[in-house]
Amino acid sequence: MMNHALTVGAMMEHAETFFPKKEVISQTHDKIHRLTYKEIGKRTRCLMSALDRLGIKKGDRVGTLAWNTHRHLEIYFAAPGIGAVLHTINIRLTPEHIAYIINHAEDQILFVDEDILPLVDKLQHHLKTVKAYIVMTDKDELPTNNLPNVYSYEDLIMNGNENYEYIKDIDENDPAGMCYTSATTGKPKGVLYSHRAIALHSYALGLADTAALSESDVAMAVVPQFHVNAWGLPFACTWFGSTQVLPGPRFTPERLASFIEDFRVTVTAGVPTIWLGLLKELEQKEYDVSSLRGVLCGGSAAPIGMIRAFEEKHRIPFFHAYGATETTPLATYSRLKSYQQDISEEEKIIEKTRQGILIPGLEMKVVGDEGEIPWDNETMGELLLRGPWIADSYYNDERSEKAFTDGWFHTGDVVTVDEEGTIKIVDRTSDLIKSGGEWISSVELENVLMAHDAVFEACVVAMPDEKWQERPIACVVLHDNYVDKTSKEELLDFLRPQFAKFWIPDDVLFVEEIPKSSVGKFLKRELRRSVLEHYQAESEEI
Amino acid sequence: MMNHALTVGAMMEHAETFFPKKEVISQTHDKIHRLTYKEIGKRTRCLMSALDRLGIKKGDRVGTLAWNTHRHLEIYFAAPGIGAVLHTINIRLTPEHIAYIINHAEDQILFVDEDILPLVDKLQHHLKTVKAYIVMTDKDELPTNNLPNVYSYEDLIMNGNENYEYIKDIDENDPAGMCYTSATTGKPKGVLYSHRAIALHSYALGLADTAALSESDVAMAVVPQFHVNAWGLPFACTWFGSTQVLPGPRFTPERLASFIEDFRVTVTAGVPTIWLGLLKELEQKEYDVSSLRGVLCGGSAAPIGMIRAFEEKHRIPFFHAYGATETTPLATYSRLKSYQQDISEEEKIIEKTRQGILIPGLEMKVVGDEGEIPWDNETMGELLLRGPWIADSYYNDERSEKAFTDGWFHTGDVVTVDEEGTIKIVDRTSDLIKSGGEWISSVELENVLMAHDAVFEACVVAMPDEKWQERPIACVVLHDNYVDKTSKEELLDFLRPQFAKFWIPDDVLFVEEIPKSSVGKFLKRELRRSVLEHYQAESEEI
Repeated sequence: MMNHALTVGAMMEHAETFFPKKEVISQTHDKIHRLTYKEIGKRTRCLMSALDRLGIKKGDRVGTLAWNTHRHLEIYFAAPGIGAVLHTINIRLTPEHIAYIINHAEDQILFVDEDILPLVDKLQHHLKTVKAYIVMTDKDELPTNNLPNVYSYEDLIMNGNENYEYIKDIDENDPAGMCYTSATTGKPKGVLYSHRAIALHSYALGLADTAALSESDVAMAVVPQFHVNAWGLPFACTWFGSTQVLPGPRFTPERLASFIEDFRVTVTAGVPTIWLGLLKELEQKEYDVSSLRGVLCGGSAAPIGMIRAFEEKHRIPFFHAYGATETTPLATYSRLKSYQQDISEEEKIIEKTRQGILIPGLEMKVVGDEGEIPWDNETMGELLLRGPWIADSYYNDERSEKAFTDGWFHTGDVVTVDEEGTIKIVDRTSDLIKSGGEWISSVELENVLMAHDAVFEACVVAMPDEKWQERPIACVVLHDNYVDKTSKEELLDFLRPQFAKFWIPDDVLFVEEIPKSSVGKFLKRELRRSVLEHYQAESEEI
Repeated sequence: MMNHALTVGAMMEHAETFFPKKEVISQTHDKIHRLTYKEIGKRTRCLMSALDRLGIKKGDRVGTLAWNTHRHLEIYFAAPGIGAVLHTINIRLTPEHIAYIINHAEDQILFVDEDILPLVDKLQHHLKTVKAYIVMTDKDELPTNNLPNVYSYEDLIMNGNENYEYIKDIDENDPAGMCYTSATTGKPKGVLYSHRAIALHSYALGLADTAALSESDVAMAVVPQFHVNAWGLPFACTWFGSTQVLPGPRFTPERLASFIEDFRVTVTAGVPTIWLGLLKELEQKEYDVSSLRGVLCGGSAAPIGMIRAFEEKHRIPFFHAYGATETTPLATYSRLKSYQQDISEEEKIIEKTRQGILIPGLEMKVVGDEGEIPWDNETMGELLLRGPWIADSYYNDERSEKAFTDGWFHTGDVVTVDEEGTIKIVDRTSDLIKSGGEWISSVELENVLMAHDAVFEACVVAMPDEKWQERPIACVVLHDNYVDKTSKEELLDFLRPQFAKFWIPDDVLFVEEIPKSSVGKFLKRELRRSVLEHYQAESEEI
């Protein structure tokens, strides 16, 4: 067979050639743009020529601080298209971490959305490797700034060469992309994505039994393009010619709902917090969301009440997927097997709370205290993954050793597996509660709590306990209209019939909000610290 | 990213692990077998251990002379599973060619279905490299034969090790499979398929916009397993956990129709001659074929009447695909784009006669006398392909140079391309008729002729012509009830309004049958020779 590399550039070439009329709909600060793949393709080539002229070479890192827009999409292809590495930076990190990431990756150039410019302006003196800044705006004049070597994105496009060629001399194992995990402790850790990994992962997204991304889809990636390549959607959707809807900067649930209605979105992807917001919006106002064939959910486990609301109330099929920054990210996808279709609607909802089965091409192993666990839907173990789109190390990072041993990526996620091979995330290894030698899943407790009418959000953390080693404490945010009307005992009574006695939390604390990471995950370590302080303060008061 | 090879063995491991309950339904000479992937997986491992014990090493060629059965499926995974090369031999070739192929491939071992045993018995003294024969039968006793080192397949399985491990030390570019093209002239030419090519090609078959093979499918490969890996279906269906129906030796249209009804087949694949037979059967007897979501057709262009019969009469979606032995084989797949859905039913049928657009991952170029042709749906050129599942040479064959130049595979197929990038095969470069400096497509004339009620089959060939260089002659097989009731002029009148004057054949010859290759393609070279002889005889008579 031909020695033919899978490359990111070839995906955009495929779209230009076979889907030139299909559109990308993009919300920027000022307006909605509609561009065809023919136009996007030309603009991408112009951008490649500009990067080349600015001295960007094969292997150089190209940073982006940007929202989900067509310009960000163009950089997705232009950077790897000249052999450089697309480095998407999580704009929700602290300024210190952002500076650390840019310096650690040694970004040569930074693309910046106009509203992020003030931040970059402030950070510039800490950035050791950045030689030029490119500002993305619809306005004729760039916003005021004190940066050296600033260029306007649209000027570069306008003066670019629309016939510029994608690099051909490239190994598919060369890096095409890069993303840092928003670690809850310590410095962020970088993961490099190869051309090969991105291409294979895109195939995975197109498979009939996973997301089945298709030319006929109108796909809206709500998950940020700065977060694990928006789960790979921009790559796959381009390759397969799907219409893309990019919701732009600082979107609201209202914008998402309107876009679904206006552009007849068929498939959308994001984290549970986003979907909680969307559900609230759908309660408040009437929208036609009948075009949706799937809401994809990942990042953390969706509570059953949310799934029920999508499936039963709004008749929108809801699909769990699972992955991590280290896994490009899609690793499992939830879809009932053909012979499971006869189960009751209620059982189907319960099945939908699981994260699904492994994507073809990957391998998994689930390991507990005593080696590989049985697939009995009960025993817990850590999920280990390997395969062609699973990272083998962190970029220039000593912490690699711990997560990548014996040829497997140790996800840190604790799962159970049923006899179908379907996994269910029950916790993080670090968040599992060990009480009297038994494991308690904080996530399962949270999910059941969140199914209570009064509960908006719940987070269960471990508190040190002299007798039992650790004991669970539940922190609960109530819906506005339930505040002061719901008691601790009521919630514990709600839990009791559903769990073994030793699982029931020792206490319920009502809080105003749960601290969250930049991508909407509960910051349990932080919460644990405040809960600990709360009890210490209490005991001092006593 | 991990350096993780894509392997054929991993596909069966995926099926064993995640689809152990799903079934393979297999017709052998004696009965219908139903085995789960759990059982098939164990049997495959037993077979691997047997091959190992018989001395088969990494890189050795393992030949099969076999129909579509579960045993053939097991060899599909067992041979590459130990690092050997699955060499499927086309049993419809002449004995001379079969012997040539086995010797050229240096097969170390031959798997033989019981009814093919007499042929092998006769050939044995010509086979220079075969060390052992394995006979596949349901019977306790092997059929009488004079072969040395004969083993019973089921005995080997029974004594095998069901925990035998798939080879891990393998490069994905190593060969996993092999197939010889049934060339119309000269010796057959061999193509090696790498693990990588088979895996990527399987992803392609699972994409929502191609065959969308899925766990929920009941897939029946009618295309022989000895012909380009049954278009890759056995690999993809196993990987994705589809139920497989294997129609076994010497099947009839009646068996195919019954299997569709009995096993609720959802998708089936084969060449036009097979579908002609099936349509005839559906006319004669009532079958419930409502489970079918797709009939896949390739190998040669399906006449529009056939497509109409499937789509309009039987309400079975019909899909053209295109490929060749050298392309693993899937290269294009016919599916309307979303914005083409509004065209009339009649236009849709016409669209369905095209071979579709390029599969993501491949590249194409269409070249005429003056370089790349415009995509105007009219200009003809030869289709050139490249990509990770396109061959770069024939196996140990000097004829490689002609077909594989400048990094492209020259398919020898002449196509037009419309503005959507959809190709339509109009001829073989060797069968195109060049009249007065203009090209005439024999295939287009044939397709229109076959749309005439009286015509069962039509084949148009070039005859040498002093004035015009070449002129088209049509050879026509009439439906039984039209014989002697249909005139040459009637058929030519039927053609006249649809083609330019110079396209109209100079003559129509009524024949009893069109000579066909082992895979059901018209043998135009042979037909041309008889037509030439016919005219020479005629002129001698005069």
